[in-house]
Amino acid sequence: MAYERKNIEAMQGYTSGEQPEDANAVKLNTNENPYPPSPAVAEALARFDITTLRRYPPPHADEFRRAAAAMHGTRPGNILATNGGDELLRLCVTTFIEPGSSLGVANPSYSLYPVLAAIHDCPVCPAELESDWSLPENFAAQMNDGGAKLTCLVNPHAPSGHLTDVEAHDAIARDLDGVLLIDEAYVDFVDPAIDYDSLELVESHDNVILLRSLSKGYSLAGLRFGYAVASESLIEPMLTKTRDSYNLDTIAQRLACAALESRGYAQDTWRRVREERTRLSLALEDLDLPCPASQSNFLLATRSEDSSPAARDIYEALKTRNILVRYFNHPRLANRLRITVGTPQQNTTLLEALAKIV
Amino acid sequence: MAYERKNIEAMQGYTSGEQPEDANAVKLNTNENPYPPSPAVAEALARFDITTLRRYPPPHADEFRRAAAAMHGTRPGNILATNGGDELLRLCVTTFIEPGSSLGVANPSYSLYPVLAAIHDCPVCPAELESDWSLPENFAAQMNDGGAKLTCLVNPHAPSGHLTDVEAHDAIARDLDGVLLIDEAYVDFVDPAIDYDSLELVESHDNVILLRSLSKGYSLAGLRFGYAVASESLIEPMLTKTRDSYNLDTIAQRLACAALESRGYAQDTWRRVREERTRLSLALEDLDLPCPASQSNFLLATRSEDSSPAARDIYEALKTRNILVRYFNHPRLANRLRITVGTPQQNTTLLEALAKIV
Repeated sequence: MAYERKNIEAMQGYTSGEQPEDANAVKLNTNENPYPPSPAVAEALARFDITTLRRYPPPHADEFRRAAAAMHGTRPGNILATNGGDELLRLCVTTFIEPGSSLGVANPSYSLYPVLAAIHDCPVCPAELESDWSLPENFAAQMNDGGAKLTCLVNPHAPSGHLTDVEAHDAIARDLDGVLLIDEAYVDFVDPAIDYDSLELVESHDNVILLRSLSKGYSLAGLRFGYAVASESLIEPMLTKTRDSYNLDTIAQRLACAALESRGYAQDTWRRVREERTRLSLALEDLDLPCPASQSNFLLATRSEDSSPAARDIYEALKTRNILVRYFNHPRLANRLRITVGTPQQNTTLLEALAKIV
Repeated sequence: MAYERKNIEAMQGYTSGEQPEDANAVKLNTNENPYPPSPAVAEALARFDITTLRRYPPPHADEFRRAAAAMHGTRPGNILATNGGDELLRLCVTTFIEPGSSLGVANPSYSLYPVLAAIHDCPVCPAELESDWSLPENFAAQMNDGGAKLTCLVNPHAPSGHLTDVEAHDAIARDLDGVLLIDEAYVDFVDPAIDYDSLELVESHDNVILLRSLSKGYSLAGLRFGYAVASESLIEPMLTKTRDSYNLDTIAQRLACAALESRGYAQDTWRRVREERTRLSLALEDLDLPCPASQSNFLLATRSEDSSPAARDIYEALKTRNILVRYFNHPRLANRLRITVGTPQQNTTLLEALAKIV
């Protein structure tokens, strides 16, 4: 006998990128930062007093909330710390989407969003992106017409790396009937010359949530730490009602604080990733794999429709050489590969293999 | 404008026990183990390679699943590792309770259960416990009549410490239409002479989930690590569909394995807690605060209805002396205090204070 709910029985779970056991694999498939975490994180771990684990962790992660608020020039009441960005996405679905309402998304986008909707048993309201990966002009109207009470936009966009500017999101937030979550998992890799600053959206709209993650920018995917920046009216129900009471362990809270405190180290990794992003993008273009301009730590290499080998074959050929990139089984991504920007050496290994394959 | 769902706006969040900043407080209010975690956990932390945090954690915590399966004499497919027992409770509500169905509980019980039902927007189906804290004879029928698709029973019971035997749960599991979750957060403190072994319930029923936690038994409340033991048919939808993809960080997975590997250390703390439980129970009885027999690491001290000072006044008087115990605002608990068994010195401090107060 099956005991799970009908919608759970019918749905497919989220498929994450392969996590090979082989430490020698050139792993450019899940957008991890190619550099290790800050030495300050290692020091915080070495200094951690294990006897404190006997007690429950600080329930609201207040030390981290203060550190994040200071960094963003806002107040701790505007910060919610979560067990990775994924927990924040789930909390938003649970907290804001009434039965009968839908989850708004751009298509294509992060493939976890429709999985969260399936768990919540609510429809997805998708709006097709333009051919240059920008949002359609009438995006907010499409969301409102589709009954979206929560709309999730990843910016820079995944898997293209396209950056939407703050003015466009400002207009969408103003026009939306529901909550706008801007998933900034990759925002640390935006060129500082662009001067992208979305914090003003939180100050001017009570329906905007910024999602930040320590996974990529701070090389801490293994630590599971993300956070929200939003108005207190949006933070409060997630902080005091829908969140698991002790969602973050004591060690993770301490290490996350150490990561923010040593932000200069992380910023240096962002600079190195941007430099390699430029080199890799130019080299891929020379290999008949041009990429749209990316402000993220990955590139969406695009194969012309009639080229041989096709994108999927290239993915397979790289895999036999122990080089992992990401291929998506999605109509608009069938001739593309998402490639994480690695270290100079990893990128060179990839380019040399591609030169033999294509 | 309020963006949260109506049921979220209307509900009250979970109230956890106070977590004082003052490290000198005699803290007997949240059932933490009074002894530090195993030295093997400290060693695992000292040996942890911080560079691995750059990558995502093992998504299914397979090393832990293998260790837990070996310990219980079952298979890894019967184990689900979760971010504390609380995550498992939430996952069960999400996975098994259809709209229109209810969450079955005994009353009184763990106050988180009705909070999870309020988030899920489903009714609670409560069955009153007998005066000796045992389950009513017709418990399963009450649950079925109330439309419970998931029933949560904490065993040993909180806040009384009463232990229900395996035969009683076997009959309930057989008669229930839905899933039976037995919350064994405190089971490590059961006297080994009783020979309580609930694993046979999982072998003989496809609708039974055992919840285990490292918080109390392994002195790791700050680590957030729990797990389920159940049939693969119940584990699978939670493992592959409703769970956040990376619910447990790499450090927590490693330390949890070290805790199980050094179980002998933990067993010694259980023995010491049992010895103090006996001493404390006898001494409380002498102070006109008798407790029902407890197989847990806490005692439910009971004040006669007409005694002065009343339980609540004793709670307040202890608090002014920097001694924290738990008082519940619940009709059947109004004249009672739940007291965690501490170290011999903490228990003596408590008893000396009580002797002055009562």
